[in-house]
Amino acid sequence: MKKIDSDTKVLIVGLGLIGGSYAKALTKKGCKVRAITLKDSDIEYSVKEGFIEDGTTEVTEEYLAWADIIVFSLYPHTLLEWLKKYAGLIKKGTVCTDVTGVKSCVVYDAQALMPDGVEFIAAHPMAGRERSGVRHSDESVFIGANFIVVPTDKNTPETVEYCKQLGEVLGFYRVSVLDPESHDRMIAFLSQLTHCIAVSLMCTNDTPGFEAYTGDSFRDLTRIAKINGEMWSELFISNKQFLLAEMDNFINQFTLLRNMLENEDKEGMCRMMQISTQRREKFDKPKVKEG
Amino acid sequence: MKKIDSDTKVLIVGLGLIGGSYAKALTKKGCKVRAITLKDSDIEYSVKEGFIEDGTTEVTEEYLAWADIIVFSLYPHTLLEWLKKYAGLIKKGTVCTDVTGVKSCVVYDAQALMPDGVEFIAAHPMAGRERSGVRHSDESVFIGANFIVVPTDKNTPETVEYCKQLGEVLGFYRVSVLDPESHDRMIAFLSQLTHCIAVSLMCTNDTPGFEAYTGDSFRDLTRIAKINGEMWSELFISNKQFLLAEMDNFINQFTLLRNMLENEDKEGMCRMMQISTQRREKFDKPKVKEG
Repeated sequence: MKKIDSDTKVLIVGLGLIGGSYAKALTKKGCKVRAITLKDSDIEYSVKEGFIEDGTTEVTEEYLAWADIIVFSLYPHTLLEWLKKYAGLIKKGTVCTDVTGVKSCVVYDAQALMPDGVEFIAAHPMAGRERSGVRHSDESVFIGANFIVVPTDKNTPETVEYCKQLGEVLGFYRVSVLDPESHDRMIAFLSQLTHCIAVSLMCTNDTPGFEAYTGDSFRDLTRIAKINGEMWSELFISNKQFLLAEMDNFINQFTLLRNMLENEDKEGMCRMMQISTQRREKFDKPKVKEG
Repeated sequence: MKKIDSDTKVLIVGLGLIGGSYAKALTKKGCKVRAITLKDSDIEYSVKEGFIEDGTTEVTEEYLAWADIIVFSLYPHTLLEWLKKYAGLIKKGTVCTDVTGVKSCVVYDAQALMPDGVEFIAAHPMAGRERSGVRHSDESVFIGANFIVVPTDKNTPETVEYCKQLGEVLGFYRVSVLDPESHDRMIAFLSQLTHCIAVSLMCTNDTPGFEAYTGDSFRDLTRIAKINGEMWSELFISNKQFLLAEMDNFINQFTLLRNMLENEDKEGMCRMMQISTQRREKFDKPKVKEG
């Protein structure tokens, strides 16, 4: 199997928070990293900081032909638009991958757009920050986090392994493999639903001065309410079917608890709290490897 | 005004997580601390660890007469039952206070049960842990946290100031004053609603293996789903009117977002996310004083 090492040439397309964090992690591991992105100022910054060799705002054949791996760090619809325009320029033998938070709506189309001899293997680095942009990129977001490879039947076992290796080299805590549907169901519950809750909670009450009394529980529940609306609304709509199902499941449980409270059904409430306490045990944070 | 210093004698009634944390903080500040609690083993442990001088499982007149301040760290209904039995033994001039998380349902009854010359001033130390019991007590939970004094028109300005001083001596980040109704409305939204959400979220989906993919957002939202059901269901029911109102407000906002998703109303979703992002800015954690 091919090794990701100091001979490996990685092209990042889209130098934002995650693209920049990939570039930092891979440069530290000795890979050669270049970038294609929208703003000259982001390229200048990243070259000056030393985590890319160079970059361009124009998509050129030279850049695409140079790369062993191309990482697309773009919004779902931008990724597909980009591939429609430029995928034909990617040279045979290149491995393409992405960082998109939803998969079914992207991976099949992306694979269909690949030229002969170019394999697209989807991946989801489950890491982020409340801020966006390359200036907030930081490879330490990968420590303790999950990297999920999301192959289809179009992918070869070798490329699946190669992509798993990428997750390891990036410094993720755990690298695993899921099919697109399982991935999207999981992400609807564990990630998208939590963002919907945080946003709704923040919109629930705007009494002036409440912030002065805020404790950790409210802060923890709303940390992710600082949200890139443009990106997340697109991710939500791209995963509408699964997310709606989870939202409805949540409303059912919440309404159950609400009605128990109305009826002063202390036993019922205690039962739900026992379930929640037991289940939450399983979700405690693992001890992380040092980066 | 009276000073809380090394001459001050504090009796803790109920040596659990919060009672024990009070004892640790006050002993460190040089106060004399004794305790009345249910289990001999908790007293032995706390004397051995050096954060109480001694304690008893029997309510004795000697202990009650000794104290300048009595801190009741009991569940709401236990507090009132205790006072009905023993309040008559409290000596004139003693200041009584509590740590209860709801106020309207407790403070007026507690004040009515005080003998002549004994003032009960309600307080809410907004701090806690997912674990209970004196063995998990830790005065560092007060660092960065809020201490709320909740007076009624039965309280004197001197005792309000004395209780504020107690919050400062305990090491709280911010000491403030609220009337019982304002307190209970605030706590319904900032604390109780968040616990209801965490419990309901944990009950929403039990797909085996999901814990392997959990990121920080799900962990943060469900940290408080490990919950002492006995205590919290009592606190919820004690604050039913305000909590039901906040639960309904939240369901309205969440359902609004759900319906926007169903209609693929990207603009509407972005608008809610803008509101949540802006509002959340105000709730960022303050820089804390070192304890």
